[in-house]
Amino acid sequence: MTNFNRSRKITIIGGRGRMGQFFTQQLSTAGHQVSTLGNQDWDRASQLLGEAELVIVSVPIERTVAVIERAAKYLLPTTALADITSIKAQPVQAMLANHAGAVMGLHPMFGPSVKSFAGQKVVICSGRNDEIFQWLLDFIADRGGELISCTPEEHDRIMVTIQATRHFSRFCCGAFLSAENTDIDRSLLMSTPSYRQEIEIVNRLFAQNPALCVDIMLATEERCEAIARLAQTYSRLAELILQKDRSALIREFEIAQSFLTQENLASTKQKEYAIAATQL
Amino acid sequence: MTNFNRSRKITIIGGRGRMGQFFTQQLSTAGHQVSTLGNQDWDRASQLLGEAELVIVSVPIERTVAVIERAAKYLLPTTALADITSIKAQPVQAMLANHAGAVMGLHPMFGPSVKSFAGQKVVICSGRNDEIFQWLLDFIADRGGELISCTPEEHDRIMVTIQATRHFSRFCCGAFLSAENTDIDRSLLMSTPSYRQEIEIVNRLFAQNPALCVDIMLATEERCEAIARLAQTYSRLAELILQKDRSALIREFEIAQSFLTQENLASTKQKEYAIAATQL
Repeated sequence: MTNFNRSRKITIIGGRGRMGQFFTQQLSTAGHQVSTLGNQDWDRASQLLGEAELVIVSVPIERTVAVIERAAKYLLPTTALADITSIKAQPVQAMLANHAGAVMGLHPMFGPSVKSFAGQKVVICSGRNDEIFQWLLDFIADRGGELISCTPEEHDRIMVTIQATRHFSRFCCGAFLSAENTDIDRSLLMSTPSYRQEIEIVNRLFAQNPALCVDIMLATEERCEAIARLAQTYSRLAELILQKDRSALIREFEIAQSFLTQENLASTKQKEYAIAATQL
Repeated sequence: MTNFNRSRKITIIGGRGRMGQFFTQQLSTAGHQVSTLGNQDWDRASQLLGEAELVIVSVPIERTVAVIERAAKYLLPTTALADITSIKAQPVQAMLANHAGAVMGLHPMFGPSVKSFAGQKVVICSGRNDEIFQWLLDFIADRGGELISCTPEEHDRIMVTIQATRHFSRFCCGAFLSAENTDIDRSLLMSTPSYRQEIEIVNRLFAQNPALCVDIMLATEERCEAIARLAQTYSRLAELILQKDRSALIREFEIAQSFLTQENLASTKQKEYAIAATQL
């Protein structure tokens, strides 16, 4: 092995969780010595953390900052510390405040049941001494992962849209189908391509752990407020539906249409949409 | 040409609309003599309708029943009459009440920008003398279309789920992205696969005509009421989010999860979901 991809000692805190298992599997298959630190293993923390070149924090959102604070005491200044939580401002700040060495926030934009990094996005938020993480970033990129850099603040702002409000929308769709006692098999038999895709997306959400899904929505005040605004959009437009206010609805439709069209015109993905638009 | 696929005289009322153009193109390419009857052509109705073997009504939902009543006067008892509206109970009832010959309700489950029937679903609702339509059904099936039979009432009930509430949800998503002035390009750069799919679905909706989209939601009282219940689901769950009621949210999640899992277990599509679940 060259220095670039020599075997490294890595400890994953929360490595028995599903995403922890994914990272463990990816890194150990490549020849690294990956250890796991779970809830019960803190009596071995000085060994598990004090000898690691890289420590990855992979615990539920609401425990991330506390775990960073607890783990930092055991780290050498030469240890690289990263987290893979769905929010980035708080964890990166906590890592910088509690650890003097290299720090980086990561957010894998996929679920733990993927087979590899191939075709998947990973957002990276620079903390301190990025160059120490270069081998890890190369490792992900070499396996087909796409790395996207941004600040922790931009990450968190965009995740409100990508993750929190969409999670909530999928959650509501599932709750509605359940409350309506919908015959999903029969509906799929008659479905449009879009409906089938949406049902699949909703099913993917409900294949996850309930507490983890709920915590993704509750993670920040910003997320909760955006979810409330989304629900207000539904109430406002549903009121127009009940009033049969056709012209107000058409006006609302045209405003959104104009916004989305401008977005599309600016987008490099324009062609892709044009193709997708052939199927309702 | 055999009798089965000999050239036939067909008139499409509303044939200049996008879906009318699709049917015109499909049928005339196959050698049929397809005429169009638009708003301005009623002075030629006795010729356009009185000589047709098949008349297809392809006009906006809210004009369908009136157009059926107006057209029926010109039809021979040997003319087959079909409509392709997104609701089926009212149009089929109107066709049966106003025309003594063969009647069938059709609902193509796709947008007008598809290239052919290949891989697309068409719901068919039997009216009277189904055998007269056999050549048309064979025509669709031969080109790869999938025919699904049901009663007009079942169709309308299931379309509340497939079409009306999902249309509304996509509409609200677009309105929300617009109101939030979301940087969609930047969000797509960081997106999960699910988010990208959802943005594409929303863009497909907003590529359509605003009035047609609004009328699909307003088409029946049943649709409006279901949309109101969907908005109430959003309000109820958003209230729990604002209260940070984690355990109530987890309970709600588990109820929907249990419903969707039962649905999935019953489904022949189970394997397909298991595969789709590998990507959040």
